[in-house]
Amino acid sequence: MRAIHLFGAGDVRVVDAPDPALRRPTDAVVRVVRSCICGSDLHPFHNAERDEAGHPIGHEFVGVVEEVGSEVATVRPGDFVIAPFVVSCGVCEFCRAGLQTSCVRGGWWGDTEGSGSSGGQGEAVLVPLADGTLVPVPGITADTDERMLASLLTLSDVYGTGWHAALTGGVSQGSTVTVIGDGAVGLLAVLAARQQGAERIVLMGRHATRTDLGRDFGATDVVAARGEEGIEAVRDLTDGGSQVVLECVGMMPAYEQALGVVRPGGTISRVGVPQYTDGPVGRVLFSRNVTLTGGVAPTRAYIDELLPGVLDGSVDPGRVFDTVLPLEQGPEGYAAMDERRALKVMLRP
Amino acid sequence: MRAIHLFGAGDVRVVDAPDPALRRPTDAVVRVVRSCICGSDLHPFHNAERDEAGHPIGHEFVGVVEEVGSEVATVRPGDFVIAPFVVSCGVCEFCRAGLQTSCVRGGWWGDTEGSGSSGGQGEAVLVPLADGTLVPVPGITADTDERMLASLLTLSDVYGTGWHAALTGGVSQGSTVTVIGDGAVGLLAVLAARQQGAERIVLMGRHATRTDLGRDFGATDVVAARGEEGIEAVRDLTDGGSQVVLECVGMMPAYEQALGVVRPGGTISRVGVPQYTDGPVGRVLFSRNVTLTGGVAPTRAYIDELLPGVLDGSVDPGRVFDTVLPLEQGPEGYAAMDERRALKVMLRP
Repeated sequence: MRAIHLFGAGDVRVVDAPDPALRRPTDAVVRVVRSCICGSDLHPFHNAERDEAGHPIGHEFVGVVEEVGSEVATVRPGDFVIAPFVVSCGVCEFCRAGLQTSCVRGGWWGDTEGSGSSGGQGEAVLVPLADGTLVPVPGITADTDERMLASLLTLSDVYGTGWHAALTGGVSQGSTVTVIGDGAVGLLAVLAARQQGAERIVLMGRHATRTDLGRDFGATDVVAARGEEGIEAVRDLTDGGSQVVLECVGMMPAYEQALGVVRPGGTISRVGVPQYTDGPVGRVLFSRNVTLTGGVAPTRAYIDELLPGVLDGSVDPGRVFDTVLPLEQGPEGYAAMDERRALKVMLRP
Repeated sequence: MRAIHLFGAGDVRVVDAPDPALRRPTDAVVRVVRSCICGSDLHPFHNAERDEAGHPIGHEFVGVVEEVGSEVATVRPGDFVIAPFVVSCGVCEFCRAGLQTSCVRGGWWGDTEGSGSSGGQGEAVLVPLADGTLVPVPGITADTDERMLASLLTLSDVYGTGWHAALTGGVSQGSTVTVIGDGAVGLLAVLAARQQGAERIVLMGRHATRTDLGRDFGATDVVAARGEEGIEAVRDLTDGGSQVVLECVGMMPAYEQALGVVRPGGTISRVGVPQYTDGPVGRVLFSRNVTLTGGVAPTRAYIDELLPGVLDGSVDPGRVFDTVLPLEQGPEGYAAMDERRALKVMLRP
């Protein structure tokens, strides 16, 4: 099959890779219908060490089950499925608690040396622990219209991640929320905050086409300024600080911005993968009783709740995909996202 | 009057200080019945720069109102009062939300250059914003027995601070909780966690007399080891980590210990004043969805709830005072706490 592999910083290529084949009775093989490139894929795209052998990449996909192992009970060949961005067993303490990202048997896509799972950016994927991982969606096929496929694909990661931000951030009816970041996750955190009852949603972002989409999703205010100037603007808008801050970037300046705009007693929820190890964590949080929460989103836990709104069209999270490319043009997709020409790129195998 | 002043690291003295006098119609003057030395007083005792003029210290006291300004409505001369460890107005947004430590008009004790408030470790104190700050306790006098006075004094800081830890940590019926630190706050965090329903309470501390008191307060297990060894012991006891961790020390090793013993999806609540600015705050929290919360405790908010249990004797938090000294021996009290000969020192003016 064809699949995107990463060979080092700035070097992704579409290569011939072995066709996935069942290894364990709990595996499934899924033929990919749509996959996509994540903002978090840009981190290894920037930083990966050279790897002459190449390594599969991608962790978001929807597809059709091709084959299942003898113990797989919840999906069958022909089923359309959503694959969350982590593998999970569905039965351990953490899966049962809705924290599938801490599954004791779970793992990541493209875990070639462990479970043998493939990367999501390919024609097909070996899915370990298929019963725990995959969510079948009756009535959907590979021929369902593009817009619906796009919205279903957001349930793999970005919509669920935005939902996780708002949920762990404690958004409730009437909340004032500041969302940092106008990437796909930030925009869908706006949508999620609105769905969870937020009244005032300040979106911090500099790209007008993106923040315009953020307004469509429910942002009531947009602040383009960053740093101290951006912080001041948000503090003015929110009369001294935002009760809930959703940090959807992961870079240190975004975390610092979150610390600057949060209200005493407020909550910062982070869903952008931190690209830092140490940082301000002492009295800057403590003296104001600021809670720091969030984390890698267990999107598997949210699909059941979010799917009906996608299927009935009451929300349209797939609008974050502004570019669709054939898999063979994957490297161009990376370049477009890296250079901010594209918000989020969907790939058609 | 006589009062303890701090002149620099290791240098506290009992000095003659001006008698407090009303400045504003919202002030009160309180004659101190009992005050005490806080673990957090040891930080300036260790680190303060030399100050030839000296500066009042102390932020926990109970006493009898001596005089009130014309606008004070809720306390009268002769009332026995508890003074929480911060001054607060009682009417601003944050006070009404129970976050008096972020009061927009509030301040600290010993704020000689601002409100003119005195330090708590003296014979009398000028109390700004008396209506918001002080809590009268009918039926108590300066002659009430020592044990009751001691327990009432814990409502000024340490009991309320332990309560804040457990509350913000999300302790609930059946919780497994690890408390880091066997100082007064740690021991009262044990008591608070038990009152809030915790079933399993692991206390990390090395001083047997203190951890024995912790067992009396409700600790089910004690781990004396620290660092990696202590972390392993707690992880063994809690089958992989503690859902709730109450960090009651404030030093970096205690925070690192908290990061080591917390369960995925769990919560670390800090109430020990962080003696660090930067620290681990990236994926160590993020990848396991660990929430970091707590902060400087609004003990004013908890007095109404905790007072009945103190008055009816169903709890006895005053047991954390293992040493009582006359005010004139305050410097010996500091030395005793610094050298760990005393757990917590109560001062009698």
